[in-house]
Amino acid sequence: MSVDFDTIVNLSKKRGFVFQSSEIYGGLRSAYDYGPLGVELLRNVKEQWWHSMVRMREDVVGLDSAVIQSPSVWEASGHLASFTDPLVECTNCNNRFREDKLDKADQCPSCGKTGTFTEAKNFNLMFKTHMGPVESTDNAVYLRPETAQGIFINFENVRRTSRLKLPFGIAQIGKVFRNEITPGQFVFRTREFEQMEMEFFCRPEEADEWFKYWVAERKNWYTDLGMKEDNVRFREHEQDELSHYSAGTFDVDYRFPWGFDELEGIANRTDFDLKAHMERSGKDLTYFDQEAGERFVPYVIEPAAGATRTTFAFLLDAYHEEEVRGDTRTVLRLDKRLAPIKVAVLPLSKKPQLSEVSAKLADDLRPLWPVEHDVTQAIGRRYRRQDEIGTPYCVTVDFDTLDDQAVTVRDRDTMAQDRVSMDQVAGYLRERLG
Amino acid sequence: MSVDFDTIVNLSKKRGFVFQSSEIYGGLRSAYDYGPLGVELLRNVKEQWWHSMVRMREDVVGLDSAVIQSPSVWEASGHLASFTDPLVECTNCNNRFREDKLDKADQCPSCGKTGTFTEAKNFNLMFKTHMGPVESTDNAVYLRPETAQGIFINFENVRRTSRLKLPFGIAQIGKVFRNEITPGQFVFRTREFEQMEMEFFCRPEEADEWFKYWVAERKNWYTDLGMKEDNVRFREHEQDELSHYSAGTFDVDYRFPWGFDELEGIANRTDFDLKAHMERSGKDLTYFDQEAGERFVPYVIEPAAGATRTTFAFLLDAYHEEEVRGDTRTVLRLDKRLAPIKVAVLPLSKKPQLSEVSAKLADDLRPLWPVEHDVTQAIGRRYRRQDEIGTPYCVTVDFDTLDDQAVTVRDRDTMAQDRVSMDQVAGYLRERLG
Repeated sequence: MSVDFDTIVNLSKKRGFVFQSSEIYGGLRSAYDYGPLGVELLRNVKEQWWHSMVRMREDVVGLDSAVIQSPSVWEASGHLASFTDPLVECTNCNNRFREDKLDKADQCPSCGKTGTFTEAKNFNLMFKTHMGPVESTDNAVYLRPETAQGIFINFENVRRTSRLKLPFGIAQIGKVFRNEITPGQFVFRTREFEQMEMEFFCRPEEADEWFKYWVAERKNWYTDLGMKEDNVRFREHEQDELSHYSAGTFDVDYRFPWGFDELEGIANRTDFDLKAHMERSGKDLTYFDQEAGERFVPYVIEPAAGATRTTFAFLLDAYHEEEVRGDTRTVLRLDKRLAPIKVAVLPLSKKPQLSEVSAKLADDLRPLWPVEHDVTQAIGRRYRRQDEIGTPYCVTVDFDTLDDQAVTVRDRDTMAQDRVSMDQVAGYLRERLG
Repeated sequence: MSVDFDTIVNLSKKRGFVFQSSEIYGGLRSAYDYGPLGVELLRNVKEQWWHSMVRMREDVVGLDSAVIQSPSVWEASGHLASFTDPLVECTNCNNRFREDKLDKADQCPSCGKTGTFTEAKNFNLMFKTHMGPVESTDNAVYLRPETAQGIFINFENVRRTSRLKLPFGIAQIGKVFRNEITPGQFVFRTREFEQMEMEFFCRPEEADEWFKYWVAERKNWYTDLGMKEDNVRFREHEQDELSHYSAGTFDVDYRFPWGFDELEGIANRTDFDLKAHMERSGKDLTYFDQEAGERFVPYVIEPAAGATRTTFAFLLDAYHEEEVRGDTRTVLRLDKRLAPIKVAVLPLSKKPQLSEVSAKLADDLRPLWPVEHDVTQAIGRRYRRQDEIGTPYCVTVDFDTLDDQAVTVRDRDTMAQDRVSMDQVAGYLRERLG
């Protein structure tokens, strides 16, 4: 089943996952803010990535490098010279467009004139700003367009302090900025987004093997977190599609409402980046293999995913509508690890004798999981809301609770209800939520 | 006991907490990258803040708003007009300086001439860049200098979707950017840093009471996480120190090596920000209290802390040197919740029969806590390293382990050692680490 684009955008806005940024000022095009549920979902996606890529591995450590780095970094990496889009300007209305996205008719999409375009000029996608009180070329700095370079320039610092031996990886999650001319499709392509990147350094002759290993690992990550196999596609780049630095790239594509599109790229970046930084900086970034008695520049396998678009994909993938007794039930079947709220505690009515009990139960459970104590509206509407935001368990306190000290636990997916003694609820949920 | 500034900077660099940013290119002034241990410590500080400010509270929800917002936001908030430092330029050497930081002698610190300064001009501390392909005034946008405004402009979105009633709070952790003319003191004052801010909306007549509440709450947070009471100071701003928007401010200061300096400010921002955004946007940001039948603009209490400088303070506060059998032992007495690595598993020697056992034990413990399996160097040096990075427990596999299936667990603070059966280690550690 596939969900229609507007449905998910509306749900996001209505339930507080994603808001248009600066909305009260008419919005800033293609910029978004993550609301109370969105921030928790995004945090959970990033946490799962960190858990699988850093915490559970002996051979990968983390890093958090600065957004604004020395301009030499972007000179060495090639971004200053070639991280560009070809732009033409209409000489009639002065609007600018990406040449590769224009129709062949040569007619300006803004003023309608034909034959008014200038020759294409390369426009750099890095946001430029100035550090210090003078706006001169000397002081120009850039917002990073990827987190990867922050890892390469720290390769030797990390190796030295962590005393890791090859193969090993360095992982980073962080904001990046790209001055896209044509952003769009909700949070899929925005000028500001979060990346989850890992650079895995290895011996050159082992790079192919590690490349295959990481392609398989990354596929498992998505499907283990509940993404439907049919909606995830692995596509190997043809030779003529490869970036200048890559000896091989796999895209992880997700079936978005507009078709398959990229979530992650897994690339064999060879020794391109370390060599480029060695050359530009004059610093030795080679690795000495003591056992083999050899010195060389490591190769790098890079799984690089978009955190915000991955979050969007999990949201789309979890969306379900189903008929229940003549009504349409909307339910987000998010993996329990990703669900923003794990347990909703609901008193059947607003009567104080119930809400006192439910408030205490919610307080008892809150140290264990993210809990919502929801006292508004009729119970049916509250179930419906919790289904729509993907809460795995609803715990209802009713009038019988006052007698039998038990509550009803409702499962989001099956809607099955169990009567559970209050002093057993935490254990019951722990078995299911971990 | 207080630690000397260079000692902590050197430890940070040597052990992989903090590196100078873009170091291989000579560094970028006052910019830093967090290494494998630093990123975990910073993550733990932010996680503890989120846990205490969002997760454990029924009345606070989270948000993650964009770094680049509509310029109208900064117009309304007053940042465009008055988030400035007074700068003078030396007409001889053209260097610029903060007037309020210059000596009275009127002598240029750069070229040494006197009487060469221009009149002071206001320099805006927001980083300016351009969105889209034209660098015109129309396209100028700014990197946020605080996360707070992203919360104010989403007040109505969050209220509507979360259905919270006053009083309630909205919390956010995120990067902010300030084009400081005189950054410095390691990670204390940098142009790019992370804030942890919460805006607590309440009825105007309850603002004083909530202000006191949050001052007390925030003090508890630092000391509960082990910061020494003597090193934390609460200081109320005098009337003439208050920001234009504030009806009262408390600073939380920490005893840094250069003296007490600010970690956090807790301010009563009144209705200043919501009113400013109402006026500029024309949108209704009032709150309707159904029970009281009243409509009003809420007051706001804001605890705003620096995540990166708080991390630095925890590092300083944890640093201890002590004499142990004639040697100096350096130990970071970090609260267990903050320690980057919770458990180090160490085989006594590199012999495979030991490292096979220790590797398996490390794998078993890794899903439970961040674990380091450290096989290099002599055992004494490894203990010393784990003490220096604040690891609460070292678990050593020795030759007796092969016979008795037990390991030695060493406590970081007391250096006491317990012999624990291998199948009980997880339980032993869980009692102590939670």
